[in-house]
Formats: sequence, C-alpha cells, structure tokens
Amino acid sequence: MSTFVVVGGDAAGMSAASKAKRDDPSLEVVVFERGQWVSYGACGLPYYVKGEIDSLDSLVSVTPEEFREERDIDLRTGHDVVDIDPDDRTVTARNDDGEVVVEYDHLLIATGAAAVTPPIDGLDREGVFTLGSMSDGKELREYVSRARTEEELQQPDRGPACQFLETCNGPVGIVGGGYIGVEMAEALAANDFEVHLFQRGDRVLKQFSDATSERVLDHLADQTVSVHLGAEVESLDGGDRVEAIATTDERVPVDMVLVGTGVRPRTDLAEDAGVELGETGAIAADAYRETNVDDIYAAGDCAEAGHVVTDDPTYVPLALTANRHGRAIGQTVAGTPTEGGGVAGTAAVKAFEVEAARTGLLDESEARDAGFDPVSKTIDAKSRAGYYPDGGTVTVTLTADRDSGRVLGGSLVSEYGEGAVHRSHALVAAVTEGATVDDLSDYDLAYAPPFNTTWDPILTAAKVLGKDVGPNR
Amino acid sequence: MSTFVVVGGDAAGMSAASKAKRDDPSLEVVVFERGQWVSYGACGLPYYVKGEIDSLDSLVSVTPEEFREERDIDLRTGHDVVDIDPDDRTVTARNDDGEVVVEYDHLLIATGAAAVTPPIDGLDREGVFTLGSMSDGKELREYVSRARTEEELQQPDRGPACQFLETCNGPVGIVGGGYIGVEMAEALAANDFEVHLFQRGDRVLKQFSDATSERVLDHLADQTVSVHLGAEVESLDGGDRVEAIATTDERVPVDMVLVGTGVRPRTDLAEDAGVELGETGAIAADAYRETNVDDIYAAGDCAEAGHVVTDDPTYVPLALTANRHGRAIGQTVAGTPTEGGGVAGTAAVKAFEVEAARTGLLDESEARDAGFDPVSKTIDAKSRAGYYPDGGTVTVTLTADRDSGRVLGGSLVSEYGEGAVHRSHALVAAVTEGATVDDLSDYDLAYAPPFNTTWDPILTAAKVLGKDVGPNR
Repeated sequence: MSTFVVVGGDAAGMSAASKAKRDDPSLEVVVFERGQWVSYGACGLPYYVKGEIDSLDSLVSVTPEEFREERDIDLRTGHDVVDIDPDDRTVTARNDDGEVVVEYDHLLIATGAAAVTPPIDGLDREGVFTLGSMSDGKELREYVSRARTEEELQQPDRGPACQFLETCNGPVGIVGGGYIGVEMAEALAANDFEVHLFQRGDRVLKQFSDATSERVLDHLADQTVSVHLGAEVESLDGGDRVEAIATTDERVPVDMVLVGTGVRPRTDLAEDAGVELGETGAIAADAYRETNVDDIYAAGDCAEAGHVVTDDPTYVPLALTANRHGRAIGQTVAGTPTEGGGVAGTAAVKAFEVEAARTGLLDESEARDAGFDPVSKTIDAKSRAGYYPDGGTVTVTLTADRDSGRVLGGSLVSEYGEGAVHRSHALVAAVTEGATVDDLSDYDLAYAPPFNTTWDPILTAAKVLGKDVGPNR
Repeated sequence: MSTFVVVGGDAAGMSAASKAKRDDPSLEVVVFERGQWVSYGACGLPYYVKGEIDSLDSLVSVTPEEFREERDIDLRTGHDVVDIDPDDRTVTARNDDGEVVVEYDHLLIATGAAAVTPPIDGLDREGVFTLGSMSDGKELREYVSRARTEEELQQPDRGPACQFLETCNGPVGIVGGGYIGVEMAEALAANDFEVHLFQRGDRVLKQFSDATSERVLDHLADQTVSVHLGAEVESLDGGDRVEAIATTDERVPVDMVLVGTGVRPRTDLAEDAGVELGETGAIAADAYRETNVDDIYAAGDCAEAGHVVTDDPTYVPLALTANRHGRAIGQTVAGTPTEGGGVAGTAAVKAFEVEAARTGLLDESEARDAGFDPVSKTIDAKSRAGYYPDGGTVTVTLTADRDSGRVLGGSLVSEYGEGAVHRSHALVAAVTEGATVDDLSDYDLAYAPPFNTTWDPILTAAKVLGKDVGPNR
C-alpha cells in the first residue's frame, strides 16, 4: 500500500486527495491542514462580507467530516507541517499534542499564498484587514454588520462623501484596485459605507485592458466610490485603531482599511526541502506538476505554471488552476499520468453592476518579450439585437500578433448579465488553440436577438482587428 | 468599371453589396430586391409580434435610402429578377414599369428561402399564417393586437386551456416545434392566447440534444403551452376562416394558426441559369462561395456550405452565415479573394424564461455517416457558485468521438440570463478547432462566483465525458 501525503487542505490539496482516493481506493491519503477550514471558496468571501451569503459554512463545498467519512481521506486539521525530508521521504507535522511523522510515496505541496504586505506604516493597527482566510472574512463581516450608535453615525469628521448616503456607517479605505479591491468596494458600499479606493497605478484592474479599466472606473464613480488613482499610501494613521489613510498627497479619515495588494506564494517549506522555485518566485513544476524532487508535486497558489501562449512559467494564483492541477496530480498518483495543462491568465470580476473578464497576453511588453508584435483594438457593441429590449454594451479589446494574426488575448466588460464573462470563454478557446483573428471571425457563433447582434461582439472585434493583422492586412 | 449585380436585398445580398462598394468604390453595385424591405432582421419578427418591439422599422438595420445615398449602392426595390443569362452575362428584372436588363461582371444569387408548405389541407384559410417576411409579421401583429369584443372573449367553444388565463384572446395553434414555433409560443402566450403547439416528432427543437428538448418542453408546459407531441396535423378546418386543427388523433378548436415547419432554399432562378444545386437541394458553392458558373456566387438561405467538422455540404439557413458569406463575397469581388468559412450548425433560441444553444454534430446517425463513433453525456450544473444568490441550472450535453476524443458538438440550456447561449461560443470554438474533450477540459476559463462554479458547466461536461472517450478511457 502506498501513501499520498498532501500539505494544505484547500482547492489544490483536496482536489488531489479526492481524485487520488477515488481512482485508487487502495492508496492511503493523508492531508495536513494548518487551519480548521478545508476546501473553502475564498472567492466567495466578498459576498459573505457584503451580506449576500448568510453563513461562512456555505462557502465550504465539502466538510472535513465528509472528507473523512465519505471519501475515506485521513484529513488532519490543525496540523502545521514543519519539515519535509525527501531523503527519508517523510513529512513532519505539529499540532497541539506534539509532532507526527508520516512517510510518503507521493507528496503534494499545496501551501497556497499569503497576502502581500506592502511597505506601509500602521498595518498592525486595529481596523486594518486583509481578505485571504475564512477568519478574515468572519472578522470583516462582524465589522460591517455591527450596529452603529447614533453618535457614531453622526461624527462630523467621518469624511465628506458620507453626504451621498442616506445613512452612512462611516468612511472606509481599500488599498489596492485589483479584484479584491473592486469586489470589496461593492461589498462595503452595499452596506452604506463611504468607500475610498487607493490605487498606486493610473487605473484599476491593471491586468485587464485599458478600455476595461476605464469602464469599471467610470462605473465605480457612478456608484459613489471615491477612487484615488496614482496614490502612494504611506501610512495608516491613528492610535490603537486606524483613523486615516495618508498618501503622499492627502490624508483621508477612515474607520477601517482593507489591504488587497496581491498575494505571494508560500514557498518556505518547499525551499527548505530542496524544491526549486521558478523565475516567478513560485514553485516550479513540469507538465505533470512534479517538482525537481522526485515524487514531490506542487499545485495551487504556491506554484507557477506554463502559459498557453508563451509556454513561459507564469504565476497566476487562481481557483480553477488549483482545482485542475490538483485533480491531474491525483490522477497521476493513482496510476494514470496526467498533464496539468497550462494557464491563460484568465480572470473574471463583478464590480457592482458591471462584469469583466480577461485572458491571454494583453500587456504589450510581455507580448514583445515573448516574440510577438502585438496589435490591439477595442470596440463597443450592443449586447443584444438593437431592437431587443433591455440590452447593454459589451466593450471588447482584442490583441493579436501583427504578422501571423494569432489571437494573443482579450478583455471584455459589460453590464452585469450582458455576457462579457461567458463570452470570454470563446476567447480562452481561441487563445489556447492558437487561432488567428481570421479563424475567430469565421466562428459560427450562436445568434438570436435576445443574446447578441448577428455578429456577436467578439466577432465584430475580430473583424475590426483583422484589418490590421495577418497576411491580408 | 466593372459591375457587381446582387439578386436579393437581405442579409447576404446587402452585406456583399456594402462590403464590395466599401472596399472598391469604383465598382458599380446593383441590387435587385423583389419587395420593399431590405436588410431586415427577420429573426426579430417574433418579438415584434409579441409587442416588445414597437415598430417594424426598427428591425431594419440600414434603410434603402441609406444604401442609396450613403453607401452609393444602386438598390432597386420592387424588382423581380426573372432571368440570369451566364453566356451574355446579363440579369433581367421586371418591375411595374416593365423589364430592365443589366450586364454583370460578378453576380451574387442571394434569393433566400421560402416557408415549407406541409401537406396539410386548409392552409389557404383566413387566419393561417407563416412568419418569413416583414408583411407576415405585420399581419400577425395586427391579428394579435386587435381588440377583442366581449362576445369573442366569452365564446364557450374557445378551448379548455383558456381557463388558465385571466383574460383569454382565444386558442391559437402553432404547427411545428422548431425555433419559430417556440418563439411564437412565447409571443402569443404573452398576449393572452391559449397556445397549442403541434409537433410531428416526439420532441421540440429536434436539432438540439434530447436533454435540451426535454427541459424546454417542461418549461413550455409550465407556461401553460399545450404541446401536442407526435401530432400528425391533417387539416386546418373551418369555413373562410380557420376554426380548428385536426390531427389523426384529435380536433382542437383554434382561431388562428401559425405554420412554422421550416424553410426550403429558393433556387429556381439559379437552376434556370445552369447553376448546380448540391445534395442538400440548396445551391452548391466552393470555399469562395462561387458556384459552378464562373463569376456567379451564392450565399445566404438559398445556398449550402461546408460543415466545419465533416466538411460535407450542409444546409443551415441562418443569419450569421448569410452575413459572413455575403461579406466574404464582397471582399472577393472587390479584389481580395476571401473564403466564406464553414458552418457549425450553431443555433440559439429563447423560449419564455429559458435559453438554449446547440452547435456541431449531435445526431448519432449523422456522426456515424461522417465516420465518427459518437458518445454523448449530459450534466446538470449550477450556473453560479452554489452559495451565490439567484443562480440556476445549466444543462450541458457534449458529444465526442470515442477513439479520438474529438469534440463533435454540444447543446446547452439554462434559465434566461444564466448563460447557456454565451457559453456555447466556447463549444463552437472547440468544435471548429478540432479540440478533444481533454483539450476542452483544460481550458483556463474565467471563474468568479457571480458567473459560474470553479469548473464552469462546460468543463464539468468535458470532465465527465472524458472518462468515456479518448486514449485514456
């Protein structure tokens, strides 16, 4: 009987554990998880904080008991893995009762990512949050839903934008204009906070196209979010509790701060065991997700993966990749070698009443580094037939290589429900399959008036870009 | 100066005319259209009849005046082309003033399709409609929106289902359960008619998967549409006006009948000119949409096209193909030879509050005829994260070749707004690119809780089908 040990009980870890055990029930599968929660949907935390989801438990897709009893997995929560010894092929974990050592035949490192700590003074003050774990979510929800006293609601120095709100729970700050930033802006605004979002660069959602960023920015402003662009946050001021955000330019009174400036891979354990990191700083792995050390695999937010366009290692810590790579490793460990597949850098976000998605290579310098000569076009198109009621506008940015016409990437934004995100699926396919813009513009996509114009917006984008790229340009 | 003559002024014809003139302004472009309407969205007619669109004019994307004045196209409405002479390279058209003969250098036949007339007695009675032209739409809207007298509303023999409706404008019948049938069921039910839909076979939307048909059927029943399956309609009975639909099994009193049993290509003119039809009965054309006769092209609902999976000629008369092929011909005629691209048999439909799409090869015998060994799986999956509010269910049927794992086709259905149709775009891409089920299940699709589960439903379908097809099965 051989043993598969998994370090980390979230998406990648539990996917691998479940798949391995299902495909080969004779395997002993041991999972060490530091916390008490496993297999939870961290992506749902903003909606829990917003109040759209009643219970943290509902973010858990499978409970620890179900893993243990129904899936026969030896899941040990509250266990902190402190050492991996590839020579002895052992893992040492510590819990309240002491240490335990387990031998492994196959090992998966799925230690995830930690919130990046930006160089800002005052991060340790009360009222400063990040949003990475279930307990972060719990604390934030408690803060958001706490009943305010009359006195609190009337404090005069609580920021000028409170005047736009009928009742105002006070001004709050968000540092970082990525997914977490815009999702949390929605969550907080929905709870009658005056939201200030501080973004270092000149646009929000910087992985998306300029046009997408602009439309999201306009929408945030419509929703009375104060977006402070080009803001260098220097300190979170106050006493025990945070009272203001200070940038190089201004000082904004706030009662709470959410820091969402990205994540970095947790790699200490891997490095100590002699597992190599890649150039992205995350754990490197081959197509089967095996590291440089025999029988040690890596997946999820601690690891890098090959990009479907460039084949270069990329660090895109997102849930689907974690699930997919975990599942592939489980299958491999159970006896069917399975490649994990690449990443396209795809991402989706809802911000109030707009939705956006992006995939592939959009950044000009990244594309040039990969040997392409990128050309981009952005179009605005109706989301439904012009005469059909209640439609909106889909803004599509498409990027392709000038000579070959190959589709490199795309970015879409529309009103929520008008299909930017689901439409992006076709661009992922085109990018992954190496399709050209001409190929894309010939796709026989579904059309009916309640769903699009005869030429779906992505076809229109392809037609327009097709004039500037490829052999016929 | 050379002359491009177009016969037929709808999607294919006007796309070709516009593109040719835009790319080569020195071309003389003459379009003959029998009716008075050009470039209209026939797909919008059900929504006009329903009353969601106020004016027939809004279905027209470009008016005759705009074509003439802004696009400099010699558009001659009210002109019936009666002869094409390929030896003299002339076209003869007739209008109220007599005949006109025009010489052509390039000719496009875009004569469209006509409603199929099923072998049913009584089709000529008053109150029997088809829905192919703008004037059909106008008449139907007039019928639907006509104010009913108290007496009419209270006639006791107006059918039993009227009891479900608060006010009932009487029972109406629809013959045919394809797109037009289900779209018109929605349009008529929304106007307080008791709707009886008669379908010859054992399911509606027979080009879609069984699972899709079943879900749409259940939904039609929920919406109080009486669907009569396996119904052989023999006659439309009555005096001057239709009064009942008689099948081999029953006789249902109705006040109006819409016949929507498909279309056939209009090919008489082409055949008389020596243009060959293909095995589908529609006009055959090469990759550049040129027929067997030099410089005579064919596009739109009168022509067949190669299927992207089988390469075999297929007759799928839909709007996007007409537009795309028309545009390619315009480009070719203007000096840049451009292939028209294949068809994937993609279609989309909204029926009340569900939406459905299909693409590729779903029919087992068609797939076998093309040399494949088709395997299908159907899954039900949540349309958004399980914990996210207001989600629905996406039902996905995926079909692939057993040995190679190649994706052959797919069919999706969901609540309206939950993304079955826009998700189908990715399946069109996979089918067109020749992707395998394993390729598809590795697509790095966008994920966020308001849009899908971590594995989008189409990935789940690919994972499930992947166990039964391809080298690793």
